[in-house]
Order: sequence, then C-alpha cells, then structure tokens
Amino acid sequence: MAPTVYDVTTWPATVSPYSDIGQVINEIIADIHTQQTTQTTRPGAVIYIPPGHYTLQTTVNIDVGFLTIKGSGHGFMSEAVRDDLNHSAWVETLPGSSHVQIANNNQVGFLVDRATDPVTNGRLNSIVFQDFCIDGVSSSKPYVPGNGKIGIKVQYDTDSLRVEGMGCVYLTTALTVRNADAFNITNNFITECGTAMQLVNGAIVGKITNNYLISAWGGNSIFLENNDNCLISGNSLLWGARIQLKNAHRTLITGNKFVSNFSGMIVHETPCHEHLISGNHFRRIFGDGGPARNDDLYGMVQLNGNDNAVTANMFSFDVPAANIVPSGATPTVVLVKGGARNFLATNQLVGNVPIRHVLDGSTSATKVLWSGSTSQLQDLTGGNMSFVPTP
Amino acid sequence: MAPTVYDVTTWPATVSPYSDIGQVINEIIADIHTQQTTQTTRPGAVIYIPPGHYTLQTTVNIDVGFLTIKGSGHGFMSEAVRDDLNHSAWVETLPGSSHVQIANNNQVGFLVDRATDPVTNGRLNSIVFQDFCIDGVSSSKPYVPGNGKIGIKVQYDTDSLRVEGMGCVYLTTALTVRNADAFNITNNFITECGTAMQLVNGAIVGKITNNYLISAWGGNSIFLENNDNCLISGNSLLWGARIQLKNAHRTLITGNKFVSNFSGMIVHETPCHEHLISGNHFRRIFGDGGPARNDDLYGMVQLNGNDNAVTANMFSFDVPAANIVPSGATPTVVLVKGGARNFLATNQLVGNVPIRHVLDGSTSATKVLWSGSTSQLQDLTGGNMSFVPTP
Amino acid sequence: MAPTVYDVTTWPATVSPYSDIGQVINEIIADIHTQQTTQTTRPGAVIYIPPGHYTLQTTVNIDVGFLTIKGSGHGFMSEAVRDDLNHSAWVETLPGSSHVQIANNNQVGFLVDRATDPVTNGRLNSIVFQDFCIDGVSSSKPYVPGNGKIGIKVQYDTDSLRVEGMGCVYLTTALTVRNADAFNITNNFITECGTAMQLVNGAIVGKITNNYLISAWGGNSIFLENNDNCLISGNSLLWGARIQLKNAHRTLITGNKFVSNFSGMIVHETPCHEHLISGNHFRRIFGDGGPARNDDLYGMVQLNGNDNAVTANMFSFDVPAANIVPSGATPTVVLVKGGARNFLATNQLVGNVPIRHVLDGSTSATKVLWSGSTSQLQDLTGGNMSFVPTP
Repeated sequence: MAPTVYDVTTWPATVSPYSDIGQVINEIIADIHTQQTTQTTRPGAVIYIPPGHYTLQTTVNIDVGFLTIKGSGHGFMSEAVRDDLNHSAWVETLPGSSHVQIANNNQVGFLVDRATDPVTNGRLNSIVFQDFCIDGVSSSKPYVPGNGKIGIKVQYDTDSLRVEGMGCVYLTTALTVRNADAFNITNNFITECGTAMQLVNGAIVGKITNNYLISAWGGNSIFLENNDNCLISGNSLLWGARIQLKNAHRTLITGNKFVSNFSGMIVHETPCHEHLISGNHFRRIFGDGGPARNDDLYGMVQLNGNDNAVTANMFSFDVPAANIVPSGATPTVVLVKGGARNFLATNQLVGNVPIRHVLDGSTSATKVLWSGSTSQLQDLTGGNMSFVPTP
Repeated sequence: MAPTVYDVTTWPATVSPYSDIGQVINEIIADIHTQQTTQTTRPGAVIYIPPGHYTLQTTVNIDVGFLTIKGSGHGFMSEAVRDDLNHSAWVETLPGSSHVQIANNNQVGFLVDRATDPVTNGRLNSIVFQDFCIDGVSSSKPYVPGNGKIGIKVQYDTDSLRVEGMGCVYLTTALTVRNADAFNITNNFITECGTAMQLVNGAIVGKITNNYLISAWGGNSIFLENNDNCLISGNSLLWGARIQLKNAHRTLITGNKFVSNFSGMIVHETPCHEHLISGNHFRRIFGDGGPARNDDLYGMVQLNGNDNAVTANMFSFDVPAANIVPSGATPTVVLVKGGARNFLATNQLVGNVPIRHVLDGSTSATKVLWSGSTSQLQDLTGGNMSFVPTP
Repeated sequence: MAPTVYDVTTWPATVSPYSDIGQVINEIIADIHTQQTTQTTRPGAVIYIPPGHYTLQTTVNIDVGFLTIKGSGHGFMSEAVRDDLNHSAWVETLPGSSHVQIANNNQVGFLVDRATDPVTNGRLNSIVFQDFCIDGVSSSKPYVPGNGKIGIKVQYDTDSLRVEGMGCVYLTTALTVRNADAFNITNNFITECGTAMQLVNGAIVGKITNNYLISAWGGNSIFLENNDNCLISGNSLLWGARIQLKNAHRTLITGNKFVSNFSGMIVHETPCHEHLISGNHFRRIFGDGGPARNDDLYGMVQLNGNDNAVTANMFSFDVPAANIVPSGATPTVVLVKGGARNFLATNQLVGNVPIRHVLDGSTSATKVLWSGSTSQLQDLTGGNMSFVPTP
C-alpha cells in the first residue's frame, strides 16, 4: 500500500482509535507533515475509517491540503426516534458504519484550519469528507443551543471542499464553513441537528445538491451569508425546513422538496436579490416541535429584495385551523416584505384553509401572475404591483 | 484491516464466492452476528465484492443494520443487444465488474429482512448497496413475468436505505421495497428489467435522483404506492418510461428526461393529489416492443386527483400516423381523468400529428394556461374549466 | 486481494508509476488480457491510484471493458490562481490527491480504443473514471489551442461510460467522446480547461449532472453534436460558461447555474429542435478574459431551430455600459436566430442597462410570454410572433 493511504485502525498511533480517533488522525496528519516536505511533494493522503464505533476526544485539525477522510457508510440511525421510544429491546441502539462520536460538549469534531495566511501561503484545496458518520451522542430538540458540538468547521480559506455521503446527527451545527470557494456538498444525510449547514463569507460559488437535510425548529437547514451564485437543487429538506439567506444573491433554488412544520422555508433575512426559486414543492404541515420562531403570517417563503423570481412551484398548506397562529389569521404563502420587481408566476396553491400571498406596503412593482386567485392576494401597496389572478 | 471489513474473495467461507456468493455473504453476516453482540457494539460492516463473475445460488439475507455491500463498478452490458445480435465474435459476452448472477428463477438476490418486530426491536438502518451488478442472466422482453428474479427485496422496516451506483439487468424487478423511511436511490443504472423499482407503504419521504431507469413495456420505471412527499429528479427514463402512482401524494417530479415508445409516462392509478410535475422533457416515439398496455388516448401523462400542477414541461410526440392506436385517433398529451383544480401552465407541445390535452367530463376547475392552442384541448366538462390558449 | 484489484504503486511494473503511470497502467491492462481470456471470463478490473504525484509519459490505452480506474480525490488546485499570484510561499504548489500529470504536449492521457469493430466484436462497456486528477501541468488562458493535451479520449463505441468525481485542470480538452450510448458524467470538477467536454455522434441518450464546469472563453463547457435526448441538470458552469449544440435535439437543460463573462451561454450552432431550457439561472458579468468570441448582440442564449422552450429562467445581466460591445448596443438576452414556434414564458430579466430579446426576421411564430416588458423585445419579423409583455 502506498504511504499516502492510512487506516485509523492499523496506523501505529499512541492511542486506540476507539478511544480517541481525533488523536489518531492528528498523529496521521503529523506523519503527513513529516513525509511530505516540499511545495511540490504534498499530494495529501486518504485516511480510511472502517466501520466501527469511535470516540473523538481530541478535535482533528486539518492543516494539509488534499486530505480525504473516508468511511464505509454514513451509518445514520434516528437518535430522536430511539430516545422517544422504549428501545430496551432494540437490536442496535447506536448509529453505525464508520461512526465517530464527539465526546465533549462545545467541541468541534473536524477543524480545517492552518496557522498561515491564505494569500501568502495558499488556500487549503480539495479537502474531502466522505461516507462516515459524525454523531453528537446526546442532545435534545431543537438541538440549539444544545450540546454545542460542531461536526465540521472550516475556518481557513478553502477551494473545492467536498462533503459527500456523510451522516450527521445530534449536533448543534453539522457543518460550518467560512471563505469557501466552489464547495460541493452532495448526497449527505444530515438530520436531527440544530443547523445542518452554514456557509459564510467569500464563497464565490457553491453547490448543495441531492442531500437530505433534516433540522429542527431552532436553526436552519441552510444558512448562507455574503454569498453569490449558489446552486441548491434536488434536496429534501424536512421537519424545520429553512433556507435562511443574508446578503446572499443570485441563488438558484430548484427542484427541492420542502416539508416543514413551520413557516419560513425560504427567508431573506436582509435584502437578497435576483434569486430564482423554481420547481420546488413546499409542503407545510402541523406536527411536533416549537414554539415556532415565526407565526403563520411570516410566509412559507419570505422575500425581501429586488428582482427575485418564484416560478412553477407548488405550495401546499395543511394545518388545522385551531393551530394557526395568530388565531384566526389567514396564513401567508409568499410574503414580499420588501423590494421591487419581484416576480411570481405559475405557482399552484393548495390549502386546507384560505391562504394568500401578501405584498407589504413598502414593496413596489411586484408581479403576481397565475399564482393564486383574487382572494389569494393581499395587496398592501395601494396598487403598486401587477396581478393576473389564476382564472 | 479492521474486523469489520470483509472481502468475499478472501473470507474463509465454506464455498467459493464464484460458486455461491450468496452463501459466502450469509456466512459473513453470521460472523458479524458472532462478533457484534450487544446493542452498542453493532456498527455493521462493509463487504467488498472485487471485480469478477459471481454466481448467487443462495439468497443473501441481511438482518443486521449498517451493512454496506460494495463492488467496484456496476458492470452493465446490454444483454438485450447481445441476444438480439450475432455476438459470436464479441470480446465480452457477459456483464462485468463486480458481477453477481442470480442462478435460479423466482429467486431474490438480496433480501433485507429480520425475524423481529420493527417497533419493539428497531428498524434496519443505513443498509447500503453500492457499485455492483445484479444480473438475472437470461430473460426475454418485456421481462415480466419473465424469470421472476428480484435483485433487492426490502421486506423489513428500514431507515435511510441507500442504493447507489448499482447496475441491474434482466430482472423481473430490480428493487422492491416496503416500509422504507428516507430511502436514497441515486446514480444507478437499472436497465432491461421488467420493473426498475417499486416502493410500497410507509415511506414518509424518499429520494430518487440521477438514475438511468430503462424498463420495457410490461412493468414500471418507478411504482410508488401509499407514499407521500417523494422527490424524483434528474433521472433519465427510457424505453417504456413509466412512473406509476397509487395513493401517492405530493410527489415532486422535476428535471427528468422521459423517452418512451409507449403512452403513460406518468400515471395516477388511483387519485393522487398535489403533485408537481415541472421542467421535465417527455419524448414519445415509436419503436420496438408491445403490445402496449394503453392506447394513445391514455395520455402521455394521466392525472387523476386534485390540485396537481404540470408546469414548464416539453411534450414531444413523434409516432407515424399509421402506428397510432386506435387508428385515426388524436393522441392525448395530458389526460385529466379525474379530480379538481389541476393546473397546467406554460407547457410546450410538439407533434408530428395533431395532439391534444383531454379533460374528462368528471373533472372540474382544471386550468389549462399557455399549454396548447385552441385545437389542442378537448374539453368534455362542458366548460367547467379555465383555458388560456397559447397565443 | 482478488486478482482483479490492482494498485499502481504495488503492481510489479517495469517502471515506477511516479515516472510513467501510463506505462504502468498499460502493463496492468496487458496483464488483464493475459488473465482474462474468454468471452465469459472478462469481468475487467479496478486499478487504484493512491494519493501521489504521478507523471504520465505514455498514453493509457484502454481496450478492455469493465475497467474502473479510481483514485482517492480529484485533488484540484487552481493553477491559474497559482500562476497569477506570487506563490513563492505557498505550502502546496501542485494539485494533489491522486494526481496524474500529462507530460507531453498534444498528448492524450487516457485513450479508450480497441482495434476491433464494435458491431462484430462488441462495444466497450462500463468503463469508469473515478475520483482522480488529470493535470495538464502548464498552460495559459484560454487553454485553446493551448498545450494540446486531452484528459480522456473515447474513440471506440461505448455503452454506459462513467466519469465521476474527477478533477481536470490545464487541459485543452478534458473529455472528448465519440459514439457513446448512455454516458454518465456526474459530480466532476473540470476547470481551467479549454473545453470541459465534447460528446459527438451516436449518443442515443446521455446524462451530465451535478458537475462544476469552469472553462475559459476559447472552448466550451459542453459541446454536443449529433446527439439526441441528453439531460444536463444541476451543473454550475462558470467563467466562459457555454453549452454549444450542433445538430443536437431534445436536450433538457434544467436547474443549472451559469455565470459567465461572455455572451453565448447556450448556443445552437446549427438548427436544434425541441430543447427545454427551464429553471436555469443565467448570470452575465464582466471580468477577466477575452477577446470574446461574440459580441453582446449574440444573445445570452441563442436559439436556432424549431419548438424550443425557454421557461422559468432568470436572466441577470450586469456589465458596465462602457464594456458593452458594440459600443452603445442594447445587449441581447435570448436571440431567436432562426426557426419556428420557439416558446419563451415566465422568464425574469434583470439588467444594469436596458436589455432585450431579439427575434430575427427569419423566424416565425415565436411566443414571448411574460418574459419581458414591451421595451424588452425587438421583433424583426414584422409581427410573425406572439407577445404578452410582463405586466
């Protein structure tokens, strides 16, 4: 086997990987530093985590590029279902496959950081997290502030970061990333976490595709800040499905399935412009959890910015009248809270009770075209908008 | 190597994997049972199938969670092309890579089942089938009833089942699943099978993305029953492309390529509600196979339920006039067979002959908006609908 | 380990893989020929490339089916950023992970070809390139004609070719394929290449999904010729984002993010029919590179054919007025250059300057529906079209 291929169970570390896989991986990374010593002889390595239950006592600090950490399965098991039921006779009571358990509260599992300057010393390129499980071990809904555990924290500038096939459970935040260019987050199973992912600053582009993202009502499925041109497609977002956007522009949100017990499935926290929200299915139901951050006037989608388009989506609302907040209110589908020239077209609305879009009085020139009947639009602008009701 | 990593070619089984890989894997699973004996020491394992031709005489019975069975390539070769041509001089005449051949008619290759009760004893979590080939060896079109072989049968309640990168060929049913929560079926190549997959009961959500699904005219590409909130996106469905839905609701079908020799590419077998069918390309041609289950009045898409939306799709019909059934009929694009408030908007229609949508007399309040010209709609409701012809 | 599993670093080749990985892989393929000698005993193999810097002096010639060549990471590093900056203090200055460097100009890295006839001797099935890096080592923008290096060239008829998780950089063409049926190109990171991929002839269907494709202004992101029914979805296309289509029909282009410094993000080089371009986000900016192939009258999208549909897209144009070519021109969003019955509906337009669609005088019966205001359409047909301005 090449010297760039490591197995946490066979590498001669000072501790057992079952006791502290973090220490073992840090020793492997130290070995990579020893082996790879020049600018042109640093291909990185792959560190393999075979199926097993591993405890992580020490935070892994990844400061080499081209490092792949890879397991053989995300090994998700619903810890919430386990904890909510009598599981005394369950065959398995822990997640499995390549299963890494973060031992300590307020600990980061995997930290990507380097004590250098990205401009002078280069970014960390092509770090890969693949096909293993990061487990916070114990937590309680809604997982924020929760145990304070973070699965992966990327603090240093990166390029082409990959997170693929991972499982995350019982973490306050599964993935938090700063200054990532061209990140690729695909085919993961991130569930029962406070926030599935937050991506902040400096990301020129990004791609979040084909994931299960199941987060509770306290955090977000996806939080994007200071980001441009992200692609979010083909994901299933559940429970407290919420894409929260802050100074993020030109996001493409398409072909996603949202099922949520709460309002605010897409939220512009500050003005966000030129998003395309197309071909998504938004399903609002009533179920466990809460209190909700927002009431039912908040909007299943809340736009606040200019020139956003919401086209060809399905909005399906089904909450018992007695559970609508405020009591007796007409729930809001799309709230255009601010901005000009937002564009809604060919959206289908279904509700067990009357529902409607709302155009805030501060907005202008919104177009609402075949996206609801006459009774499904509340215009507070005094007519500064265009409306073609669905016939 | 960790004790949780198995290789079918090196594990000391009682038989050769080339003679009966099923028996070998069952012995490995028995070893897992021996090694992993408590509720908190059952991480499962990965079983590796290197490239090779393996015969499966004995059905694999997976009754442990967190098991990954993984090969190095789906190894698809078109057995139908092979059988239809003189292949005496072909270099290879069998599929390859990690190639598992089911030996016996009416046999299941891989059965996921456990002699326990899911509620009392827990579900089977995170079972993974990855990157190998399941081959029915011999069959003839349309493969149903065919040889009765089933690639993977999931009988016990599961959570987060994964089927990824698999190849399946010459099976009556490639994949049949009951009671699966949050299944993930992605990047597979399932072809020349009667039915590519059927998913029945208890699935709260599901995700079927980025697959090739090539099935003949007897079965289905995807059959969903008693299912809610499934996401079907980015797939190529060919030959007898057909998504059959029975008591399935709020499915999102988006960004798929359908190419079919037959009508009925999406079919509501019973009332199905609130589907969003958006951004798909439906191509109907004439080619091999049949007799067709349905004639050309059946609809390329047949809706039967309430509040379904069909938006921003392309419908391209190209069948020689002489081959249209019944003879002389005007083929149907979307048949709204039943239900209220179905919504068609901004669909493009192309036909080598006149084609049209049909609204059954039992339907009400369907909207047909810029989805065809005046001559492309047959309204049998007596006007209980809204129509804005494409100008 | 099974005899079908090879590792380039441990196989007893006549040369070191670090000196010439091409020669090593060719010797492995020769061994496969020696080991696998009959029509029914050719399962192929997997060749593993561990992380490391490898030079490829000799072109790999793949003439066996079911061959998987697989690394542990695409190892991308931006060579353009490196070359543009002072990188004397960078920690790493080469791409990494499983990093294959093509040594010679005008060389192909991996050639899929066989000295037989596909009809008589069969196609090459299920070749897989997975998770490694192909690097052209040195080049300069726009990389065409550049160093003349080609990453992967598929010359012989194939079925179910897979290119997945690969990284490509500094190549004239990353991937060029002829006569491929049911190719699958997914989750790759192909950047800083002249052309990311060209797929020519004989492809019945194809699937290009979930990729990063970053090519400069000289070549194309995707070039498709003589192709039918391709699916292009969920990709991020950047810099000189361009899908060039020549005699390609019924392509589905959906859910893609385009960010480009140039016009012509989708181009019909010759008449192309019945495409569906839906749910994409087109972002035109001004930045490095050029001279542009086309001016700003060329169209962000240029259609030339019949019955194409452009629905539910966002077109966002932001180029300083001083940089628009020709000077003072009104930039074109969609240019319908030729053909009949093209269909634009519910597209959102945003520009920092006035922008508009243009219908060439040769076109007929184009529909432009809620895709721009009255001032955003230039109709040169004399009224042979339908227009419903966005209200």
